[in-house]
Amino acid sequence: MTDPTLEDGLREFVADRVRAVAARDAAPLVDAHSQDVVSFPVLPPAETHGTGDVADALTAWLDSYEVGPGYEVHHLRVAAGGDLGYCSFRYHVSGTLHGGGEVDMWVRATLVCRRDDGRWRIIHTHESVPFDPETGAGLISAGPEDD
Amino acid sequence: MTDPTLEDGLREFVADRVRAVAARDAAPLVDAHSQDVVSFPVLPPAETHGTGDVADALTAWLDSYEVGPGYEVHHLRVAAGGDLGYCSFRYHVSGTLHGGGEVDMWVRATLVCRRDDGRWRIIHTHESVPFDPETGAGLISAGPEDD
Repeated sequence: MTDPTLEDGLREFVADRVRAVAARDAAPLVDAHSQDVVSFPVLPPAETHGTGDVADALTAWLDSYEVGPGYEVHHLRVAAGGDLGYCSFRYHVSGTLHGGGEVDMWVRATLVCRRDDGRWRIIHTHESVPFDPETGAGLISAGPEDD
Repeated sequence: MTDPTLEDGLREFVADRVRAVAARDAAPLVDAHSQDVVSFPVLPPAETHGTGDVADALTAWLDSYEVGPGYEVHHLRVAAGGDLGYCSFRYHVSGTLHGGGEVDMWVRATLVCRRDDGRWRIIHTHESVPFDPETGAGLISAGPEDD
């Protein structure tokens, strides 16, 4: 069965993530990952391995914004069993890139976490937008209101 | 810590999925999901709820193929703790659609599973292709060789 106390810890884990993005602070975001994390990121490449790749991607992402990024988490779901847990949610990213491009995008996120020494860390992350086979486009505006 | 016996069960769970697709048999594929499953599918909509939506999507998917679908699982990773487990993998889909279109596509998959009465069922599934922000396209050819 799932464990309410552990699930509260996962909700707090996601709240910490939101606070770190708001502070544009990559260090706690990277430290929330296990060394052996396997990531399926929203942007290419399709798969990365380890916290080095996570640090590079997070730093590049934060540095690309002149204003923002705004990062709002919606529809958070969590479950935990033993030392394994997961979080799924939809997040809205907004802001202004260096160069002037405006970002207004909805992403689907799944985090699989392992608890080591009482602390949750991400061992697998999957972030994406849906793919429209009619046009070949990624659907970056598909928010919860459109489901 | 993770449990090798439970992890073997998750590998078998994925092998069963591959066998059911090869047999074009939607029933065991649907039955592998919990009633309350939350899905982030590769194709729109961005999120679906419950086994009714899963059954509709799987039946439409299998029925769309004149030849296939071929479904090959690569780079399977699993972990289990208590009654929660997850599988992540890359899969290659191939075949010929009714109407003649050829499919040759790599998808990233994450399945979060719960063990009820000794049996794993999917409570959350996330399938996707990466999104190229330069072109706006979904990258359907991004296989493990391209990482």
